[in-house]
Amino acid sequence: MTAQYRMRGDVAVLVPAAGLGLRLGPGAPKALRLLGGEPLLVHAVRGLAVAPSVGCIVVAAPPDAVDQVHALLDPVAPVVVVPGGQTREQSVAAALARVPDRFEIVLVHDAARALAPSDLVERVAATVRAGARAVIPVLPVVDTIKEVDPDGVVIGTVDRSVLRAVQTPQGFRRSTLVAAHAASTDPTGATDDAGLVEKIGVPVATVPGDEAALKITRPFDLAVAELLLRRTLAG
Amino acid sequence: MTAQYRMRGDVAVLVPAAGLGLRLGPGAPKALRLLGGEPLLVHAVRGLAVAPSVGCIVVAAPPDAVDQVHALLDPVAPVVVVPGGQTREQSVAAALARVPDRFEIVLVHDAARALAPSDLVERVAATVRAGARAVIPVLPVVDTIKEVDPDGVVIGTVDRSVLRAVQTPQGFRRSTLVAAHAASTDPTGATDDAGLVEKIGVPVATVPGDEAALKITRPFDLAVAELLLRRTLAG
Repeated sequence: MTAQYRMRGDVAVLVPAAGLGLRLGPGAPKALRLLGGEPLLVHAVRGLAVAPSVGCIVVAAPPDAVDQVHALLDPVAPVVVVPGGQTREQSVAAALARVPDRFEIVLVHDAARALAPSDLVERVAATVRAGARAVIPVLPVVDTIKEVDPDGVVIGTVDRSVLRAVQTPQGFRRSTLVAAHAASTDPTGATDDAGLVEKIGVPVATVPGDEAALKITRPFDLAVAELLLRRTLAG
Repeated sequence: MTAQYRMRGDVAVLVPAAGLGLRLGPGAPKALRLLGGEPLLVHAVRGLAVAPSVGCIVVAAPPDAVDQVHALLDPVAPVVVVPGGQTREQSVAAALARVPDRFEIVLVHDAARALAPSDLVERVAATVRAGARAVIPVLPVVDTIKEVDPDGVVIGTVDRSVLRAVQTPQGFRRSTLVAAHAASTDPTGATDDAGLVEKIGVPVATVPGDEAALKITRPFDLAVAELLLRRTLAG
């Protein structure tokens, strides 16, 4: 089979998908769990490949599943698959190392946000192209938020108007992402690339996120994602 | 028609449902929007009425819809319907004034959390019965959370491990809720009863919330709720 999409854009996307997703139940790495009969990772890569800006996708797979992941994605898009590291940060670094020099804009995307629409990918990419060194898609926080002590007793109500829930893909000037990872000192590995950029003092911009880009980690999320997928296919 | 449920518990529940819910589209108060062919408020009251602890439900309705709301709910459960005020806080106070003296435990529940399971109602009620003066159901915050400045630029990453997303029903010793409302000084009206309790220095406990108790305010939430409802009816 040949890949369904030919990618010609100026944006490279890294997809760290090496993590084990025990929260969706035992038996399969999170990124390979099925949604509508296909692994989350397939949905995620397809969504990236149809975005006009995307010209390169590098997936960090579980080290013992590199061949399996490549076989899975080859019919979807012309991706590069590399063995992931022990932490998400190592996986991002491994994927970043394989991005061809010509790409100055690099996005990092969680495979668990498998239904992120291509509009969202374009919005993040456009903001970097327009000059931002780092940009994240965000949604308002809709629930009342409390801070609690270790016993679960409420300390106080947080002003949620200044809070935003962060999604992916996150977008970066390549040089900014490289510098942020080089400066990282967290031995357990960062789980948030924008957080690394904040630590080196580079401003991180925000753009509106999309409810469809929800993170699919629990059975409840998977049910919601199945619903979204059916609506998308129907409409 | 006679009410489907006879309520004998020791807990009164206030349901402020007078607000206009423009976020689900124009044309109907939020609590009267349809979910699976029935208004959100019907689902909410039915869920409360089947909880063994509940002995009294007082609904604050839009002032021009009191008769309509009573006719709607009468077949579901023996509820009291009162005209709501201009703010949510006034509606809670109006409903609280109609609770018979014998109820020492009072819950406040958002009609927009129409699918809150009776297990959750029982958990909140039991915690008050066991001695807590105020208790709220909460869920962990799963997304990375950033604080932003007025321009949307990230100020920093928030430690989400100490944050909780608040749901309803919230539970109170009646005397605590009365005191908290009496002390309220917010002219625009409080939207969070536990927040009023915090302000008078009474500790607010937490119990685990339930994903099914999501707040149904946007079309996306309504779609998720439809899905949950179908799963509940099927299973």
